[in-house]
Amino acid sequence: MSEFETVPYSDGDLALTGHLIRPTGEPRGAIAVFPTIMNVTPAVEAKARALAEAGYLAFIADFYGRTPEGPIAFEWADALRADVGIWRARLRATLDTLDGLAPDSPKAAIGFCMGGQAVLELARDGADLAIVASFHGLLDTQTPAERDAIKARILVCHGDADPLVPRDHVLEFWQEMDRAGADWHFHAYGGVKHGFTNPSPPPGNDVVAWDRSADRQSWAAMLGLLEESLEDR
Amino acid sequence: MSEFETVPYSDGDLALTGHLIRPTGEPRGAIAVFPTIMNVTPAVEAKARALAEAGYLAFIADFYGRTPEGPIAFEWADALRADVGIWRARLRATLDTLDGLAPDSPKAAIGFCMGGQAVLELARDGADLAIVASFHGLLDTQTPAERDAIKARILVCHGDADPLVPRDHVLEFWQEMDRAGADWHFHAYGGVKHGFTNPSPPPGNDVVAWDRSADRQSWAAMLGLLEESLEDR
Repeated sequence: MSEFETVPYSDGDLALTGHLIRPTGEPRGAIAVFPTIMNVTPAVEAKARALAEAGYLAFIADFYGRTPEGPIAFEWADALRADVGIWRARLRATLDTLDGLAPDSPKAAIGFCMGGQAVLELARDGADLAIVASFHGLLDTQTPAERDAIKARILVCHGDADPLVPRDHVLEFWQEMDRAGADWHFHAYGGVKHGFTNPSPPPGNDVVAWDRSADRQSWAAMLGLLEESLEDR
Repeated sequence: MSEFETVPYSDGDLALTGHLIRPTGEPRGAIAVFPTIMNVTPAVEAKARALAEAGYLAFIADFYGRTPEGPIAFEWADALRADVGIWRARLRATLDTLDGLAPDSPKAAIGFCMGGQAVLELARDGADLAIVASFHGLLDTQTPAERDAIKARILVCHGDADPLVPRDHVLEFWQEMDRAGADWHFHAYGGVKHGFTNPSPPPGNDVVAWDRSADRQSWAAMLGLLEESLEDR
């Protein structure tokens, strides 16, 4: 396994910086990793490193081209997501870059919180990915998937006590996926909050909490579905 | 791994026959396996064998003390479940027998269809099990769990297109588990029907269908949660 390399890329005029980590040996696949609203953090780097340890090339996306300090991230995120064309282009720039980095590897995408929302948006946009996996991602969208638009298999790992994703969003999401004809797996963890994969959540925050079991089991589920889906391609 | 041994046991005056299979070496745990409404079948034996291959002692329960031929199974099952005291006693007889067979092993219970309903009933009844795992089991009950009654961790693996378990049952179940303070994981598989773990479902039946991915992924999820839960005890 390598250390992280920074990879400059761009979305139109905006300069972005990805973080790439390679496995020892030939990658089993190339995985785009979409971070939380805070952009690249040690928690997300740890997940990319775990992918490399499992034999995958992992490439962490850059949402903004700069690092947010504190709550300004919410403004940047809202601005980015306000126009679905801009939002999808920003996400696609990461996949295009990953295609250049690993042209012969099968691709997948995973994401955390806003990154989970991002990978679902890529799926709705018809991205050619083996799977997308969302960890405590937002499920709602202004652009529900069209019939047969989704190519990727979908895995959503969701804390049922996540205040940002109430149960009516869950049911709407299932309905959206069925209408689109998607292949989806949805894992709900009782009593588990937002951000359950991050062992060091921001203090003084009732919305997020690490959950060791949900973190372990969701990661294993993702690796299992990824391996199966790559075998089947 | 051994071959199956038959183990006579009883529930009151009713003679029952369990099917036991042992792993090679010291068992990592002892697992009660509750079959479908059809009682022991090759599909359930295959799952018990897979548990033994994974290092567990597995003991297949006997619901009726005899083998149903065809639709008579539904009558027998309805009669057995009509009185929760009788139903729970029948299930407890299996756990008691397993305690005698493997007194020093930590215990868990898994079940398929009616067997999934059975293991959830055992959890509601406060059985001292590391986990219970239901595969395409019925979720409704006449005796919802009391607050703090459930000791076992709960895993439900559910086909979202199972006509026997509509989405309102799913939501009621989540509410029941939360009210009881249970630790639960719920996996829903989009478009997947009842009986998804059985590669040879009865022909001419629109309710059931094998799903290779749901079968594989649910099994891996169960083994992962079981291993984690045994480590934590």
